[in-house]
Amino acid sequence: MTNEIITSVQNPLVKRLHQLLSRKGREEQQRFLVEGAHLVEEALKSGAEVVTVIYDQQRDMDPACQRALANHPEAVQVIAAPETVLAKLSETKSPQGIVAEVKKTAADWAKWVDQKREEQGSLLLLFLDEIQDPGNLGTILRTAEAAAIDGVVLGSGSVDIYNGKVVRATMGALFRIPVFTQSLVDTADEWKAKGGRVLISSLEQNSVSYDEADYAGLTALVIGNEGRGVSKEMFAKADQFVHIPLYGGAESLNAAVAAGIFVYEAQRKRR
Amino acid sequence: MTNEIITSVQNPLVKRLHQLLSRKGREEQQRFLVEGAHLVEEALKSGAEVVTVIYDQQRDMDPACQRALANHPEAVQVIAAPETVLAKLSETKSPQGIVAEVKKTAADWAKWVDQKREEQGSLLLLFLDEIQDPGNLGTILRTAEAAAIDGVVLGSGSVDIYNGKVVRATMGALFRIPVFTQSLVDTADEWKAKGGRVLISSLEQNSVSYDEADYAGLTALVIGNEGRGVSKEMFAKADQFVHIPLYGGAESLNAAVAAGIFVYEAQRKRR
Repeated sequence: MTNEIITSVQNPLVKRLHQLLSRKGREEQQRFLVEGAHLVEEALKSGAEVVTVIYDQQRDMDPACQRALANHPEAVQVIAAPETVLAKLSETKSPQGIVAEVKKTAADWAKWVDQKREEQGSLLLLFLDEIQDPGNLGTILRTAEAAAIDGVVLGSGSVDIYNGKVVRATMGALFRIPVFTQSLVDTADEWKAKGGRVLISSLEQNSVSYDEADYAGLTALVIGNEGRGVSKEMFAKADQFVHIPLYGGAESLNAAVAAGIFVYEAQRKRR
Repeated sequence: MTNEIITSVQNPLVKRLHQLLSRKGREEQQRFLVEGAHLVEEALKSGAEVVTVIYDQQRDMDPACQRALANHPEAVQVIAAPETVLAKLSETKSPQGIVAEVKKTAADWAKWVDQKREEQGSLLLLFLDEIQDPGNLGTILRTAEAAAIDGVVLGSGSVDIYNGKVVRATMGALFRIPVFTQSLVDTADEWKAKGGRVLISSLEQNSVSYDEADYAGLTALVIGNEGRGVSKEMFAKADQFVHIPLYGGAESLNAAVAAGIFVYEAQRKRR
């Protein structure tokens, strides 16, 4: 744990980190930012590769973050900086006085599945098909962790999982639940080749009610885009269509609410 | 259906309507704004008291809105205006070209309960205790309508139900499900005096799992504030504490997701 001081928003490190506020910057550098004491602590405790922590020199660093830093196995560059620097690295109206730079992780989905399957025998996964709203995606990850879903596959074309709003809405779940970003159609093919079943959330005529579906064994549940639902390409992969009944006049449920109802029912049946 | 033209943002009507973007203005005038063709159509079709519709003179009025206006039983003041006026009455980045002024409704909760009870025999209500996030509140109303909850009581101290973000997140449910804003503690007392039961969402040690709770007959389910949960004053009114198990590492669920899991389980058991 080193301690440095930065004084200017013109500092090259600050300029580089500022680029992580855009998807392009995150893809080029393969890193992302997390803001706020709680999320920085979660990142440090999770074993994520935290590279840099910058905190507001006018405030004391949060004690929980200090402890997590002290226990972090890898060296972290710790930097004190003025409020202007923190503001430059913040997407929120009131910068929270601490921000961390974290390396993206890239695990191999197929290997992960094989290993998990050997450990547990069965698996329950969420496949997310072009979820667009950052709040929805973050909330779905938070719910998936709460329900102890084994992992999440985020289809290409979805909002970036490392978007600041997503990260904040996960409440730290991002650091604790495996998330893979890749082609959903290819993933479904691999999953089916491994004996997995694909349940697609849709109001199709031949769909069964969420409380009558079979979630046993190797099950992946597909949640669709907020506007158009699950794509036609994914429809072809369905072993079963499942829906949540709309008893009232509403045309649909919010994607995160629907995901929550599905995953809790799946776990209720599996337990 | 009258047709008028307004040309300036300085017009007194525009100035008055602009005040409806603030809670203070909505409380003084007892009216609120809804923006976008879909919501304006829903307001007109629902029987809500629509006073004024202003649309962008550069665009044609949405055909569904035109039909809804033609079928609306009361006279509505219809006004064409330039984009600048629409922008002045919009909270969104890209104004949607149509906005309606709607009168708030104020029904008597106790009378409504008595009547509904006579019609149906049983009732399932949601009590919301100081929900603060507009997106959460709107999503909860949308879910409540989908699950055919009979009505919602929004405790004093919550975000304003007529806040533009709330109205948009309801997807029109606001116009189709009864919502009462009033003291939740007093409402709970009245409800219990009528023989109603109060279920409180909480992780208290003596709480039962959401799938083992009794939702029959006259049941009100209380969902708490995003940060601190249900208030201590409401705790005193509990007939039963209920919780959603957190199987994974998450500390809590999003309030709208929790409400969705609860109300769907309640309806699953009641049906």
